[in-house]
Amino acid sequence: MRIKIEQKILAKNEDFASANRKYFKRNNILCINMISSPGSGKTTILEQTAKALKNKLNIAVIEGDLYTEYDADRIRKTGLQAVQIETKGACHLSAEQITKAFHKLDAEKLDVLVIENVGNLVCPSDFDLGELRRVVVLSTAEGDDKCAKYPGSFAQADVLLINKMDIAKHVDFKISKAKRDARKLNKQLKIFEISAKTTAGMDKWFNWLLKSCKELRK
Amino acid sequence: MRIKIEQKILAKNEDFASANRKYFKRNNILCINMISSPGSGKTTILEQTAKALKNKLNIAVIEGDLYTEYDADRIRKTGLQAVQIETKGACHLSAEQITKAFHKLDAEKLDVLVIENVGNLVCPSDFDLGELRRVVVLSTAEGDDKCAKYPGSFAQADVLLINKMDIAKHVDFKISKAKRDARKLNKQLKIFEISAKTTAGMDKWFNWLLKSCKELRK
Repeated sequence: MRIKIEQKILAKNEDFASANRKYFKRNNILCINMISSPGSGKTTILEQTAKALKNKLNIAVIEGDLYTEYDADRIRKTGLQAVQIETKGACHLSAEQITKAFHKLDAEKLDVLVIENVGNLVCPSDFDLGELRRVVVLSTAEGDDKCAKYPGSFAQADVLLINKMDIAKHVDFKISKAKRDARKLNKQLKIFEISAKTTAGMDKWFNWLLKSCKELRK
Repeated sequence: MRIKIEQKILAKNEDFASANRKYFKRNNILCINMISSPGSGKTTILEQTAKALKNKLNIAVIEGDLYTEYDADRIRKTGLQAVQIETKGACHLSAEQITKAFHKLDAEKLDVLVIENVGNLVCPSDFDLGELRRVVVLSTAEGDDKCAKYPGSFAQADVLLINKMDIAKHVDFKISKAKRDARKLNKQLKIFEISAKTTAGMDKWFNWLLKSCKELRK
């Protein structure tokens, strides 16, 4: 019974995800599903991305949080469009929520749509939102053992951003271990070491975004 | 239909939780459900607690993780008993899992049982394990906005351990904001500022454990 219900929920999600993906492909919108633990620095990464690329790319953000509009407010201050989804306690975003939130955005000439998922390294990885790329963020403060302990999120990602490299030495984070574990799960994974606070290393992430948008338009 | 099934799952969990709680009360075992995001430092807190208190209290640990036996191995090195539950992808522990894992421990003369839940600030807060106390850990690296964004975990806790105070200045963590938000949700909450790395501030946590065990035996 539980399994049947779960299949039904996932099947409904898959219908919306599939429609979303078709729309994003047809309209050359690089839709990114960004997944991480709470406090890994997703919003700060997006603030810096906005500052660096807003004259080159038209970017919008859908923010997912249990409660509060904090993150959408932070994004709007950078000049980007942002829609907040409050899940009221739910642990992940669904494809249907994305469909509805997307309608609130001015999508004309949009190049990139980033979905900042609920801070949770477990549940969001099971729910396809119709994204074209998946990005997982791991902060050094979380420890270098997290890829092995939470494999789902890392196995299905296109990009791993290892954030807070500026404090790696204070939290005994071994970058070689984290990268080795991540590559064991996912040979194709692109890994960028960054500090969203200092912006160190972020140029590679910006270039990946620019290149991915170009490839989509081909 | 979804709601009925969810009620059924929660009702079954409640039956096991209730039986667990009765057992722990009858046997004066201070059972603690420890909840946090991935990488907040739960295992390091328990390692330091083991070192400081193992001659004063008989402590055992049940470790919850999606995959790996890493954390139980770390606890066993301190000399404590530890049982690992691998949830194989599930996002929280259930009361039934605790009942089964507990049978693997030598419970004679046990004073404290700590359940280190799956690293997830969302789902575990909805599942009563039959614990007598709930402890939530927030690391400064996660940011001072997390109490407001993930209220469920903080509203239902007895103790909040704010960990990684040693790096608070590197991550712009405002302790007054975090404490104010936490107290808004939960007036009874005891808050201890600690660094499990340096052990600074941990004596208050140790004293709380000793005092709580004494109170239980009255």
